[in-house]
Amino acid sequence: MSHPLLAELATLLPANALVTAADKLAPRLLDQRKRMQGQTLGLALPSSTAEVVQIVQACRRHGVVIVPQGGNTGLVGGATPMQANSLIVGSDKLNRIRALDPAGYTLTAEAGCILDDIRTAAESADRLFPLWLGSSGSARLGGLVGTNAGGLQVQRYGNTRELVLGIEAVLADGRIYQGLHTLRKRNAGYDLKQLFIGAEGTLGFVTAATLRLFPAERSEAVALVALPDPEAVLALFAQAKAQLGEVLTAFEMIDAEALRIMAKHFPSIAQPFSPIPPCAALIALSGGEAEQVLNERLAELLIAAGHEDAALAQDGSQAKALWALREHIPAAQTREGPSIKHDLALPISAIPAFVRAARAALAEQLPEARPVVFGHMGDGNLHFNLGWPRREDFEQAEARANALLFDLTLAHGGDLSAEHGIGRLRLAEADARHDPVERALMREIKATLDPDGVFNPGVLV
Amino acid sequence: MSHPLLAELATLLPANALVTAADKLAPRLLDQRKRMQGQTLGLALPSSTAEVVQIVQACRRHGVVIVPQGGNTGLVGGATPMQANSLIVGSDKLNRIRALDPAGYTLTAEAGCILDDIRTAAESADRLFPLWLGSSGSARLGGLVGTNAGGLQVQRYGNTRELVLGIEAVLADGRIYQGLHTLRKRNAGYDLKQLFIGAEGTLGFVTAATLRLFPAERSEAVALVALPDPEAVLALFAQAKAQLGEVLTAFEMIDAEALRIMAKHFPSIAQPFSPIPPCAALIALSGGEAEQVLNERLAELLIAAGHEDAALAQDGSQAKALWALREHIPAAQTREGPSIKHDLALPISAIPAFVRAARAALAEQLPEARPVVFGHMGDGNLHFNLGWPRREDFEQAEARANALLFDLTLAHGGDLSAEHGIGRLRLAEADARHDPVERALMREIKATLDPDGVFNPGVLV
Repeated sequence: MSHPLLAELATLLPANALVTAADKLAPRLLDQRKRMQGQTLGLALPSSTAEVVQIVQACRRHGVVIVPQGGNTGLVGGATPMQANSLIVGSDKLNRIRALDPAGYTLTAEAGCILDDIRTAAESADRLFPLWLGSSGSARLGGLVGTNAGGLQVQRYGNTRELVLGIEAVLADGRIYQGLHTLRKRNAGYDLKQLFIGAEGTLGFVTAATLRLFPAERSEAVALVALPDPEAVLALFAQAKAQLGEVLTAFEMIDAEALRIMAKHFPSIAQPFSPIPPCAALIALSGGEAEQVLNERLAELLIAAGHEDAALAQDGSQAKALWALREHIPAAQTREGPSIKHDLALPISAIPAFVRAARAALAEQLPEARPVVFGHMGDGNLHFNLGWPRREDFEQAEARANALLFDLTLAHGGDLSAEHGIGRLRLAEADARHDPVERALMREIKATLDPDGVFNPGVLV
Repeated sequence: MSHPLLAELATLLPANALVTAADKLAPRLLDQRKRMQGQTLGLALPSSTAEVVQIVQACRRHGVVIVPQGGNTGLVGGATPMQANSLIVGSDKLNRIRALDPAGYTLTAEAGCILDDIRTAAESADRLFPLWLGSSGSARLGGLVGTNAGGLQVQRYGNTRELVLGIEAVLADGRIYQGLHTLRKRNAGYDLKQLFIGAEGTLGFVTAATLRLFPAERSEAVALVALPDPEAVLALFAQAKAQLGEVLTAFEMIDAEALRIMAKHFPSIAQPFSPIPPCAALIALSGGEAEQVLNERLAELLIAAGHEDAALAQDGSQAKALWALREHIPAAQTREGPSIKHDLALPISAIPAFVRAARAALAEQLPEARPVVFGHMGDGNLHFNLGWPRREDFEQAEARANALLFDLTLAHGGDLSAEHGIGRLRLAEADARHDPVERALMREIKATLDPDGVFNPGVLV
């Protein structure tokens, strides 16, 4: 407790709200991908918005910067404190669901609520909160909002931005922005909540959010389709979207290498096709109709598209198994070895040409890289990851792969981050590759809302 | 051409791009509701983003403020220049559709494009642009973006904000914000386009936008249901939303007085119920299924809810006729006489209690007011308008009605503008009734992006 900030916080906060023990801080200092090792004065765990205000004001007085942290599941280092003169403010104890209004289709939850718990609370009222991603069991709402998280059902329901109606946040000067609106429509000027969504904790500390709910889905239909190439995946997506627009919940692409490492590391997850096809598409429908009707609509699509040999789940457990084949790919990659990860945004119709061009360029310039290509085809979001055989020259390989793939992505009208954000990992790339006016406007807004740079310096702007 | 700005613009712009003739300016100086009579130096009609930059820079040099104007269909005076030292910048000649990508479900159009033309362009590619409102034939994209327009299909597709992927805008210092992104997902920091959507022209001049398209709807089912009271409308909405979520495109409420003035002023629009019921709900479904399937789903809902006597459109012309009954209410009100208009946002579940309380309070305090209550029930958006018998004391009556209804609206968790915006008409109310931190943040952002107040002073902030 040598630092005067810690001494002051110890008088302001309850005893268990301040953590300085090295073993308890350790997991907070390492980012999810274990690539950044941070440092900090300590961890504050406020239980109320008022406590957050006190912490922010104390940090300002002592010139200590604040790193907001949720479930620490981000993939670009946005929640890792890299300077010693920092305080992590964790949302763990801001964990109440403040309101649930089934008739109004809204739920208001504090920043520390875990996504799965929010989904369960909505379900208990026969409602759906559709945000769903690999880290649903540990990601917290504040981080989901701060990173504008995407996931597996964006095609139908949008990403976090589209699911947030209102925000409560503590600003750098200690003011509380009280914007927990529950109204679907409110045209009252600049939509301030948008500033905090996707801001990666750089403009304030989000303490709570009001979320949109949807009718519970009565049924689901899932199919895995074997396809010869990305062009065929695109053609099937076009047909699915046009024919099944309102019930098309997800459309994922999985390539042969992803299926191969799944067979190797998760042999218990059954694969419907043998031999492994060059590509597969996972199609999920859901809605208020009977399961039989959805299955028929999906079967009609597959017949019309000439894919009668697709694997159509016959029940919920088969549907889960098909989803497991998609969901476990990142885990299979981790077991396979080091991998260079990308989260590319692309115009949907450019994906096949991009995949071909990227494979060709890699084969020539980085022949040891083994592409594992999968992702949210329906959202134009490709996780174009590269297995790499060694740790020794991983970082050199990564730098070369990034340059090559980002060049190609931008040339195809895409961008370097679809859902993971900028964080620390992509900051230099964003500065180098994005429109200078866009970057300048962000810095101007940052300077307006956080003139002393209290919140998350070195991240995003 | 006495003012030096006009002399300079005459050298910068093509001959027909500068209008100063009083007869041509006159319709630009009167707001849509004919309540504000403006004044101006002239009207500039740029044909390109580069010309907008020149106009903005010239206005700055000469200390003249800019009032962006689209179709001049706004209802809160946001496009009416109230100071002589102003220049109207009209989007009329920025009227090209720059790109249409059916496979990517996007369309990029300039600010002057008229909504109906955008919808038609999308239709020509078998796509839907779902924004649809009374002024679709004259509203221009720049104004729709600037006001975050809502309309008749928000329940399903969202308002303008949810339909915009990217924005191009000229800033107060002449920089161009080039954010015409076509990507569905792009997590690259603060979502700057959100600042310009709903900003009512106070932060920059929007020159173009990229819009989200949807699969063309193959079929539609429409019903009008007679109901005893707003409680019954709410109950039916709850059931419709839960049962038909993904195909429920619109759910409108219409009260007896609205039906009565429709019968009086538009007798050619058939009314299915006699005598006129206390309330009616218009329900519209649409989607990719066969018309018969949608009609069956709607009929099932009505039977389950005990409304077998509803009027279910048997074909497209009957559907149009039911819609006409809803769409012509504002015109019927104009024919009926003066009316005090409101655009209230309310929690959906509070609407019945609000309507009862408002009727009771008006009967006591403003007994001559004749409520005409209709609106987008499914979005929690009520047009609670009041017919008033005379022009003489209209403004006093309006002031009393506003105070009464806004008090009640806020007491029910609602707000004073759902889709029309703040403009000039609601500015004092917004300052008085909205969270001071929210208002202060808006002023801070305004001061950052437009420090000299070039854009639309007196509007919104």
